[in-house]
Amino acid sequence: MEKKALLYEGKAKKVYTTEDPELLVVSYKDDATAFNGVKKGTIEAKGSVNNRVSNHLMGLLTKEGIKTHLVEELNDRETVVRKVSIIPLEVIVRNIAAGSLSKRLGLPEGTPMKHTVLEYCYKDDALGDPMINDYHIFALELATREELDKIAAMSFKVNEVLSEYLKTVNIALIDFKIEFGRTSDGEIILADEISPDTCRFWDTVTQEKLDKDRFRRDLGNVEGAYQEVMKRLLGV
Amino acid sequence: MEKKALLYEGKAKKVYTTEDPELLVVSYKDDATAFNGVKKGTIEAKGSVNNRVSNHLMGLLTKEGIKTHLVEELNDRETVVRKVSIIPLEVIVRNIAAGSLSKRLGLPEGTPMKHTVLEYCYKDDALGDPMINDYHIFALELATREELDKIAAMSFKVNEVLSEYLKTVNIALIDFKIEFGRTSDGEIILADEISPDTCRFWDTVTQEKLDKDRFRRDLGNVEGAYQEVMKRLLGV
Repeated sequence: MEKKALLYEGKAKKVYTTEDPELLVVSYKDDATAFNGVKKGTIEAKGSVNNRVSNHLMGLLTKEGIKTHLVEELNDRETVVRKVSIIPLEVIVRNIAAGSLSKRLGLPEGTPMKHTVLEYCYKDDALGDPMINDYHIFALELATREELDKIAAMSFKVNEVLSEYLKTVNIALIDFKIEFGRTSDGEIILADEISPDTCRFWDTVTQEKLDKDRFRRDLGNVEGAYQEVMKRLLGV
Repeated sequence: MEKKALLYEGKAKKVYTTEDPELLVVSYKDDATAFNGVKKGTIEAKGSVNNRVSNHLMGLLTKEGIKTHLVEELNDRETVVRKVSIIPLEVIVRNIAAGSLSKRLGLPEGTPMKHTVLEYCYKDDALGDPMINDYHIFALELATREELDKIAAMSFKVNEVLSEYLKTVNIALIDFKIEFGRTSDGEIILADEISPDTCRFWDTVTQEKLDKDRFRRDLGNVEGAYQEVMKRLLGV
């Protein structure tokens, strides 16, 4: 599978067309951004960590019956994925209060949620990716009731599978952001990535942050944290 | 029914106990605030307009089978209501984009919504009354799934009844905020008020704003707008 034209370049990834109209190649960059692009930097080897960690976790999810866009890892940074039309929602699942949820509800970071929280943010840089609810989604015609029910059910299942698995390598899944897409035949599948860029991972023993918050908050040892996640998950 | 002790003084109302532990007296003030109390002022006769308009609309809703806290209007400014434990949610129903929804979704004010929008804000001044969703409500244990389903159904019904009625007096119901409470036996009923303080009312012909936006945005003729609503609804 060879890359053809550059289809899209985002903050952390490039996407290329291939000879198969149903397949794309994703190439992960080391570029890091935060706060809607206001903070910019580079995290050495982040691209390869995110590519390999995301593929590893999507592989796990596939075994548990969750359909994803993953087709084949090409190399350290590049992966073949199914082409989908991305639903412009950041779907956020939260087990423990952190980040914007702590601010919104006035809960100290680390507070366990009494009910798993699912949030939707509308992917729109100009609007600052605002949080929206089911009714906004219907009014904007971003997804149907049926599609949103499927997205919610899949998101809770992803949370269950990943939380259980990560516990075995002493990582607490605090929260994560995922995205979904529609295939050419209208099926909803998991797309984008699952990585230290898109999850909050805390060491279950030391509570050390092993994710992008080290970059966002200038906590130091950013590369080391990404490498540590890869080591625990892939043994390399 | 006589007022006894002052139980609570809010931005726009005082609430008194009575000799009946199940009943309270609400006394509407002319004080107006906006933007979480940052803007302050007085709107002459607002207290009596809001008291009478709210009672009039709650009376209509009662006839349509919606239970409310309204018991009896005592005088221009004061009304006997059932004592409830207020659920700390601002329940907002939106037919046309305006205010914070326009900002959140980037929609010009006046854009009709393709699906009626229901929003919940967590009543917490220190947090700035943040918008929250069903999952936050369960995590904070503000209401059960069953209670929230009832609140949503009642809110949509209130919207239907009021929109239809207001059309007959050339008022478009753009959006409104309502609150619910639990009675001593756990029933969810409509509480608080329904008035130009808590609704956006636009003249269907001239599009003139007949609500608190005239105060928030310094549009002038604030008192006149409140009086106009009372005149159209009560003929006085």
